[in-house]
Amino acid sequence: MKMITKASKKLIWACAFVSLALCAKADDGHNLWLRPVNAKAVKVTGANPKSATLAIAKKEIEQAWLGTAGATVKLKLVKDPTLKADGFKIAGNTVSATTESGILYGVYEMLRRQQTGNISNVVSNPSYQIRILNHWDNLNGSIERGYAGNSIFWRAGDNAFTVTDADKKRWEEYARANASIGINASVLNNVNASPNMLGEKELARMKAIAAVLRPYGIKTYLAINFASPMRLGGLKTADPLDPEVIKWWKAKVAEVYKLVPDFGGFLVKANSEGQPGPQDFKRTHADGANMLADALKPYKGIVMWRAFVYNAEEKDRAKQAYLEFMPFDGKFRDNVIIQVKNGPIDFQPREPFSPLFGAMKKTPVMPELQITQEYLGHAEQLAFLATMWEELYKSDTYQEGKNSTVARVTDGSIFPQKYTAVAGVSNVGLDTNWTGHDFAQANWYAFGRLAWNNQLKSEDIANEWIKLTFAPTIENKDWNKGFYEPVKKMMLDSREVVVNYSMPLGLHHIFAGNHHYGPGAWYAPRGTRKDWTPPYYHQADENGIGFDRTKTGTDAVDQYHEPLSSEFNNVATTPEIYLLYFHHLSWDYKLKNGQTLWDALCNHWNTGVNQVRQFQVTWDKVQPYVDAERFTRVQEKLRRQTRDAQFWKDANLLYFQQFSKRPFPDNVERPINNLNYYITTDPLSMKPVQQRR
Amino acid sequence: MKMITKASKKLIWACAFVSLALCAKADDGHNLWLRPVNAKAVKVTGANPKSATLAIAKKEIEQAWLGTAGATVKLKLVKDPTLKADGFKIAGNTVSATTESGILYGVYEMLRRQQTGNISNVVSNPSYQIRILNHWDNLNGSIERGYAGNSIFWRAGDNAFTVTDADKKRWEEYARANASIGINASVLNNVNASPNMLGEKELARMKAIAAVLRPYGIKTYLAINFASPMRLGGLKTADPLDPEVIKWWKAKVAEVYKLVPDFGGFLVKANSEGQPGPQDFKRTHADGANMLADALKPYKGIVMWRAFVYNAEEKDRAKQAYLEFMPFDGKFRDNVIIQVKNGPIDFQPREPFSPLFGAMKKTPVMPELQITQEYLGHAEQLAFLATMWEELYKSDTYQEGKNSTVARVTDGSIFPQKYTAVAGVSNVGLDTNWTGHDFAQANWYAFGRLAWNNQLKSEDIANEWIKLTFAPTIENKDWNKGFYEPVKKMMLDSREVVVNYSMPLGLHHIFAGNHHYGPGAWYAPRGTRKDWTPPYYHQADENGIGFDRTKTGTDAVDQYHEPLSSEFNNVATTPEIYLLYFHHLSWDYKLKNGQTLWDALCNHWNTGVNQVRQFQVTWDKVQPYVDAERFTRVQEKLRRQTRDAQFWKDANLLYFQQFSKRPFPDNVERPINNLNYYITTDPLSMKPVQQRR
Repeated sequence: MKMITKASKKLIWACAFVSLALCAKADDGHNLWLRPVNAKAVKVTGANPKSATLAIAKKEIEQAWLGTAGATVKLKLVKDPTLKADGFKIAGNTVSATTESGILYGVYEMLRRQQTGNISNVVSNPSYQIRILNHWDNLNGSIERGYAGNSIFWRAGDNAFTVTDADKKRWEEYARANASIGINASVLNNVNASPNMLGEKELARMKAIAAVLRPYGIKTYLAINFASPMRLGGLKTADPLDPEVIKWWKAKVAEVYKLVPDFGGFLVKANSEGQPGPQDFKRTHADGANMLADALKPYKGIVMWRAFVYNAEEKDRAKQAYLEFMPFDGKFRDNVIIQVKNGPIDFQPREPFSPLFGAMKKTPVMPELQITQEYLGHAEQLAFLATMWEELYKSDTYQEGKNSTVARVTDGSIFPQKYTAVAGVSNVGLDTNWTGHDFAQANWYAFGRLAWNNQLKSEDIANEWIKLTFAPTIENKDWNKGFYEPVKKMMLDSREVVVNYSMPLGLHHIFAGNHHYGPGAWYAPRGTRKDWTPPYYHQADENGIGFDRTKTGTDAVDQYHEPLSSEFNNVATTPEIYLLYFHHLSWDYKLKNGQTLWDALCNHWNTGVNQVRQFQVTWDKVQPYVDAERFTRVQEKLRRQTRDAQFWKDANLLYFQQFSKRPFPDNVERPINNLNYYITTDPLSMKPVQQRR
Repeated sequence: MKMITKASKKLIWACAFVSLALCAKADDGHNLWLRPVNAKAVKVTGANPKSATLAIAKKEIEQAWLGTAGATVKLKLVKDPTLKADGFKIAGNTVSATTESGILYGVYEMLRRQQTGNISNVVSNPSYQIRILNHWDNLNGSIERGYAGNSIFWRAGDNAFTVTDADKKRWEEYARANASIGINASVLNNVNASPNMLGEKELARMKAIAAVLRPYGIKTYLAINFASPMRLGGLKTADPLDPEVIKWWKAKVAEVYKLVPDFGGFLVKANSEGQPGPQDFKRTHADGANMLADALKPYKGIVMWRAFVYNAEEKDRAKQAYLEFMPFDGKFRDNVIIQVKNGPIDFQPREPFSPLFGAMKKTPVMPELQITQEYLGHAEQLAFLATMWEELYKSDTYQEGKNSTVARVTDGSIFPQKYTAVAGVSNVGLDTNWTGHDFAQANWYAFGRLAWNNQLKSEDIANEWIKLTFAPTIENKDWNKGFYEPVKKMMLDSREVVVNYSMPLGLHHIFAGNHHYGPGAWYAPRGTRKDWTPPYYHQADENGIGFDRTKTGTDAVDQYHEPLSSEFNNVATTPEIYLLYFHHLSWDYKLKNGQTLWDALCNHWNTGVNQVRQFQVTWDKVQPYVDAERFTRVQEKLRRQTRDAQFWKDANLLYFQQFSKRPFPDNVERPINNLNYYITTDPLSMKPVQQRR
């Protein structure tokens, strides 16, 4: 018996090294979680041939049916009070819904269940009506915080506005992928928006994109530049109360809707990080948002107005969105939604939830999540973000008593809202595999699945994604133990691993300037806004480390509802994962495990490195179960991640030891360079930089 | 009690970080193992004021006496048949010897014993008459394989031949350091010798150097270029049998002795790596050496003729020195010594001993050791070489029965020899601390101590060196446990650690081209001599790895005396440390510990990295016991060594896996870059290179 095991192991390895073609077909990752299967015969009824959406539903069934051969699947448009929005019901081989999109979602769910081995009836309603991707795509084709190639929507050059077959093919693939996970909306351009977005050629291209997306149930939205009336329209002002400005926007909205009658609306980043906004004209965010909302209202369009605002003068950036927006609660039109980033700072590997969630009781609030890994290793590092988002959704705001979770205060469970929505900043680009890192596909997938059902568990999402993405086409009874289990564990651990090697215990925003890839706790070039430099956030000195947001500090804790306010104010009751977010503590502060703060920080950094190393081992061992192409891509990414993790650990150890003046614990692996190396080496390019300190 | 320990630990750390000045005086390392001490009063008799050497002996006692205050030390020149050469006797406070140098050595030994706490009487005779440093110093001041700054003897520029006070001070410090460990000879220039060495200005400078070295008992030697009669003397030939050539050398030797009457002789690298030699004129090594020996004979000068010869045509470089020189055994003049590198290849981290040791029975053979770490990490890596040399000296050649160790077949114990000698290629340069790495001083020290007594144990040498170099000036009862023990362990382990992360199990010469710093198992630019490329040495292919030197291979084993010849020929009896030096083995070959060869290689590389990491921890923990200057210097070197070790491991893992096609064992830490990175990154500069493969 043992001999056989050994022999088969050998065979597996020979396979892995020698004749890969025989083992698993090369996979460039382009098919995402929608890989072709050997479909069985099936009949589909109820697909009204006039409906492009139902035609898609039918085709999807025909090309992926794994149920009983020769079965008949019924698609049924119904009236059913148990179904909300584009919810659906699967009963046996029947999929019913009140909308065509609902049927399409039901079909994808049915096929997914077949593939993942979970055959059962279900009624499923979406948590949010609007499940939207924000593409930070610039009109020249570049993508802000994009790490997987250029924009699939925009490009520079002579044929920038030519709609090619390749364009349409890619857009359709994109739409299909989104539909398969319930995403029903896309903002096609960067929130740092060009006024040109509303130009003629740009809108024409939007129309072409919308036409491809529409059958898949996806509505098109645009991010707009608040100064468009001036910079595009030639007006002297963009004052939202100016009649000419109002007129200009109404005309522009009419123009848009003429092109795209089901256009979704505008996303606006105003008076934030240098973007124009109503405050430039001494108007309020409400003035600005409402003016646009009024223009969109006749068409049922909406405004998603971002709360991500802060300025250099305030003494705590974390407090500013709340301070800025709470006074306007209830002052917004009913087709305005305030889009709030998950944390008060900015998509950090870990932050507490934004205190605006649940606090704005008379204005709908939508979470903005970042799928693209700006702060979690770009497309180089493996970080499955479902766990981070699950942590957010489950956070209790206590705003309407216990169980006022972020999920429930945003999805309409607690506050009556005309619109509910959740946004994810997309990680999609022109790379063949869409997301650069093969495992970053899982974040796109997870965002969609959680937008549909914000009660889903990360483990269940990982379960689906792994099976859809990697399950062998030929049954392999070892696969579960050999691939599925270890890879699932790796994914579920991965976000915490990033936190460990970079910013554990509530540390935040100690990144290298600009690209936010590696460490830069020291980064503070002269003349830079303090709130754009890491020392502002970590506050390390000889006495300790951390940002004091207690009542005796900036009192940011006051923005949270009791009991959180008191809990965060008291170091003893603050969850240790948020410790240095709320407290400035002595290096010798004792954690619950008995370690000093300094030792614990060192140990987290060190543990993170070893955990990524373990990912490498895990991945090496799954080689027999995965095609060579994806195996090699991920293996190479993991090599880099370990290198990066080591870079994080070493830089943090050496930088902070300058203040702590304490030794590293014995078990902590020592740095392999001097501090100056880390300061003068760009962690992204690994080339020398001359950073002014 | 525990509280006190903790408090004192804290104090130590505060000390380490805050007020270093209070703890241990900054030490630039310039004083080597001869640091100033608080000497007690002492009287010295017997120091004949006419003797510069005895004056030094007296001064040394006066400035370092740690015996009974007010004692009288007697220096006595005696006739004593128990004393050989410059041996000495210490009896109470009396030092006696048959030569002035002997007294000086006895004084240094007495003072060393006082400092290291080993007070006892002793009679001590040197193992070798000539204990010589070979300086590979070029006349322009550069040093071949020198890593600690430029030459202390030579320099380029306008004042190249000006003898400054700084020159003389440095030469005297150098002479004193040598004398303190029994070194009594120096070759002032590179074995790849410039003909100009014998020019007028150069010889004048040599005279000035010799004058400073002489009182310390150090004789001066020169390396000569065999073509000097042509290239310096303008003759048409350098044929050793040509009367004009013979005449030229006789005249040159006379000129040298006129300048330096106690001149030691010539060191010659002939017909080796492009150097000229007698074979250029169809003469033999014996012809060449004997001609020079005849010229030197009248002055009691000697010739040290290097056996380091090999050419590209032979199919095994390891065999060549033996093949070349054995036919001439007994054909050399009695003032010729054949200088043989410790191993058959070239100063590798580990090789078996050269088969010439003990085999040349009628010709004196002297070992050539390399103190400068050409192949063991330059002055960047910590590698205490005493263990390597101890391994060599103790190797049994069996040439005259059991216990014909390399030590005994070279030191006159077995073969009657007119001259006995041992050479060490120096690691000294103009750096303040002489050797670049503070711990490289220990190799200079160890070479000298073993040259004096080739039976010394590495541990005893480390014991002396650590105490002399690092012992606190103020008694600290924790020092032994806190510093001495861990540092000694680190030193004793260090050479094996280098072997582990670079070339375990008999691998050899898989270095990056030219600088021999990091890995380059792939290095084989087109057109390069095969025996200058690593694939020649590792012979890796899909079937296995290693150089087959058995009877069915190149039969290099035949050059060893039985039982070694059979032992090395049989894989089962070959010591595993030499496994791949003698055998080409399957990747699945089972080692004694049950591991496959592939797994064992991976584990060695991996272990090596972890061992250096442990050195870092060890060193961090001794911080309270060492001055900040040396602490930081060594700490930084160890950081680099870990980085380098990781580079070695990763490069080896990835390169050889191409052939082994086997997975890494689970416990082996994965690479952090792709193979191509290691191939295209220079391991010394860490900058990109374009190496042709």
